[in-house]
Amino acid sequence: MSDLTHFDEAGNARMVDVSDKLQTERIAVARGSVYMAPVTLALIKERGVKKGDVLSVAQLAGIMGAKRTPDLIPLCHPLALTSVKVQLSLDATRNAVDIEATCKLKGQTGVEMEALTAVSVAALTVYDMVKAADKTMRIGDIRLVHKSGGKSGTFESA
Amino acid sequence: MSDLTHFDEAGNARMVDVSDKLQTERIAVARGSVYMAPVTLALIKERGVKKGDVLSVAQLAGIMGAKRTPDLIPLCHPLALTSVKVQLSLDATRNAVDIEATCKLKGQTGVEMEALTAVSVAALTVYDMVKAADKTMRIGDIRLVHKSGGKSGTFESA
Amino acid sequence: MSDLTHFDEAGNARMVDVSDKLQTERIAVARGSVYMAPVTLALIKERGVKKGDVLSVAQLAGIMGAKRTPDLIPLCHPLALTSVKVQLSLDATRNAVDIEATCKLKGQTGVEMEALTAVSVAALTVYDMVKAADKTMRIGDIRLVHKSGGKSGTFESA
Amino acid sequence: MSDLTHFDEAGNARMVDVSDKLQTERIAVARGSVYMAPVTLALIKERGVKKGDVLSVAQLAGIMGAKRTPDLIPLCHPLALTSVKVQLSLDATRNAVDIEATCKLKGQTGVEMEALTAVSVAALTVYDMVKAADKTMRIGDIRLVHKSGGKSGTFESA
Amino acid sequence: MSDLTHFDEAGNARMVDVSDKLQTERIAVARGSVYMAPVTLALIKERGVKKGDVLSVAQLAGIMGAKRTPDLIPLCHPLALTSVKVQLSLDATRNAVDIEATCKLKGQTGVEMEALTAVSVAALTVYDMVKAADKTMRIGDIRLVHKSGGKSGTFESA
Amino acid sequence: MSDLTHFDEAGNARMVDVSDKLQTERIAVARGSVYMAPVTLALIKERGVKKGDVLSVAQLAGIMGAKRTPDLIPLCHPLALTSVKVQLSLDATRNAVDIEATCKLKGQTGVEMEALTAVSVAALTVYDMVKAADKTMRIGDIRLVHKSGGKSGTFESA
Repeated sequence: MSDLTHFDEAGNARMVDVSDKLQTERIAVARGSVYMAPVTLALIKERGVKKGDVLSVAQLAGIMGAKRTPDLIPLCHPLALTSVKVQLSLDATRNAVDIEATCKLKGQTGVEMEALTAVSVAALTVYDMVKAADKTMRIGDIRLVHKSGGKSGTFESA
Repeated sequence: MSDLTHFDEAGNARMVDVSDKLQTERIAVARGSVYMAPVTLALIKERGVKKGDVLSVAQLAGIMGAKRTPDLIPLCHPLALTSVKVQLSLDATRNAVDIEATCKLKGQTGVEMEALTAVSVAALTVYDMVKAADKTMRIGDIRLVHKSGGKSGTFESA
Repeated sequence: MSDLTHFDEAGNARMVDVSDKLQTERIAVARGSVYMAPVTLALIKERGVKKGDVLSVAQLAGIMGAKRTPDLIPLCHPLALTSVKVQLSLDATRNAVDIEATCKLKGQTGVEMEALTAVSVAALTVYDMVKAADKTMRIGDIRLVHKSGGKSGTFESA
Repeated sequence: MSDLTHFDEAGNARMVDVSDKLQTERIAVARGSVYMAPVTLALIKERGVKKGDVLSVAQLAGIMGAKRTPDLIPLCHPLALTSVKVQLSLDATRNAVDIEATCKLKGQTGVEMEALTAVSVAALTVYDMVKAADKTMRIGDIRLVHKSGGKSGTFESA
Repeated sequence: MSDLTHFDEAGNARMVDVSDKLQTERIAVARGSVYMAPVTLALIKERGVKKGDVLSVAQLAGIMGAKRTPDLIPLCHPLALTSVKVQLSLDATRNAVDIEATCKLKGQTGVEMEALTAVSVAALTVYDMVKAADKTMRIGDIRLVHKSGGKSGTFESA
Repeated sequence: MSDLTHFDEAGNARMVDVSDKLQTERIAVARGSVYMAPVTLALIKERGVKKGDVLSVAQLAGIMGAKRTPDLIPLCHPLALTSVKVQLSLDATRNAVDIEATCKLKGQTGVEMEALTAVSVAALTVYDMVKAADKTMRIGDIRLVHKSGGKSGTFESA
């Protein structure tokens, strides 16, 4: 079973040394959802047809959040991301706002934490904007759905 | 049904004006979990008895994350938090790392976003530290469980 | 003629000591514009009727920028702003995107730098989003139009 | 007429994908001015011969501001700038503090936003340091004067 | 002997709860030095009479550093400092650049970490600016020399 | 005698242009100490056997601090560090917490400031966590002990 690479032999946390890894194109896609009451989802949907749009604000927050990843996650490397995309959509059958983030980098380390952070910050922003209407929302199902470009090959999930 | 306070009449997003709100002691408690394979949880548990400890790193990241809330969530007010606590524990029956964050402020606005951000950042940090061992983890059930001190009274959930 | 309060007698730059100033409600309003070619303005206007909206992105950037003021302006105090509003509009006769930001604080120091920073960051964001179409834009006329709540009384301009 | 690259077909704002762009040496030069009353300009000039120097503080703020560009401008890429220069001078005939910033990068995207942000932050810092003496200052004429190294060739202006 | 307040009974690190502490005027003064070769000190001294001045840059960095304290020190509270002063001087007899920082706050917690951080960042900045000339510099004697306004009374040292 | 590269001919501070430097593997190691009363050191040692561990918190703060270097030191380049390690140990004979940080980068500029900043932030964090027990601590002997990969060859010290 693999051990945890973020600790050295003496048990010290560390930023993993990636100096000798290959510069390859890394892509990661993450997804997550904000679950809420049907009336709350209706409220967001209704805003989408006016100018002020919950999803647009959250989308932008997600993109900016991806860039803050190394400030937030202690052992993440600072990275010069070459692409960040965040998309939000409403699923009325599951009473959910669904979020998907895609990050790219030509570099020596994967970008799954950047994609997961983008999803998390976008989800928190959706929450923030409708929390006055609904205190029972849940942020969930934040997960990796695609990762490619690293030594471990391509990962796909749903 | 309440409309969204984060937009003005013209549909512009805004940081809500709290100038006239009362300075009261605000408390918020949020919870969330990272779900993983049993062997991954075992890996974390095992580290807990050595010096290098996944939960300690995540706990610290959660506390620091709470302080970054206004940098991350576009319409959150900058706040001078008076207390942040983050606790993590393992639940082997649910294959989960459970996270709870408590934030306090004497101020004019609630601190639920700070507590939820602390939980999210701690969860992402757990994920980061064990991701080499498990790509199928899910961060979920991030929710508010307690809020007090505001105009809307005390909220309790589970 | 008044001397510069940001320097002490020995010529050292300093963050002015506001410990003894009164806690009052401070309001500042700033304005500025991005001037561009008519076709560029038309491009922004056209987007405003689709979902992706230059002005919404810039507006959010302005609000977040106001919160970063003490990180950017060396001698600005860290402040807990109670309200930030940013509004953008198009003026086809002047080929301009006009920006107005309003900041509020109950505190010991004025918030004009926060309002001016919000306008500047919103203007830079407009520039960023249309720069591929127009390299001759100018950001200008960034100025204070209202300030109240301080020792020096109320200031109004246009 | 070119469309806006910062939005995808569905209208979502995005950080443009530069993964396939060439790594070339990018240079951008931006300029701007702070216009003020003659007595205010005299105040700054006078300080320049003492130790405490408005222009030195603003110059440093400009350099640091260039580094904060991806934190401020939502869709800007994080970049590892290889050079930042900021220069300020006084023009008594126009009652202006003139600012010029030059940024360099070996990379896949241009650095005009970094140069423009450096100028903007330097201008705001000049404003901050003399605002107690003059509430009628204007920051203006922030513009690109040189850009080279990108696909669109070399741009020169005044 | 006092135990460590930054840990709870279960051993979790925490941001200490200061909700019930009194709002008093807190002052802290810290000092430190950068020790170097005599020729390096001479180099700094010589610059001081030209426009470009090592000590001015370091002084500004110290002030800005004080504001970043809660971002850097994991368990520090975010604070709205009301005053920051940093002074640097040369002591040729000890081949030292001496730094002193004074921070003030009307608040519920002391500001010694802010003063110590200001000194540390100013010292690092001095080091950065002359490191090409001298690799054997040492930053040292960073210490608290005055603290007042807290429950533990006034502390004075040298 | 070498002049100061951080100033141009006109005396303006600048971020040195490294565009033409070679991309090589840069390594820097820095050390420093926190000196304290014997009882304070005993307090830290005792915690090390419980879960809450001063040294672990400081170690993590040091790693995160290295990433903040370009935000703190005005003329430092933003860098994509490929490795950061921070280690702390207790030396009862000198009543000292000893700190060592190692930073790596494949890039055009050295990383000694990153290593020195990591040591400084770790030292400040140790100080913060035990300051309630001891106001007479000193942070000192922060220095470079190894540097390699640059034009000036390899530097070794103790």
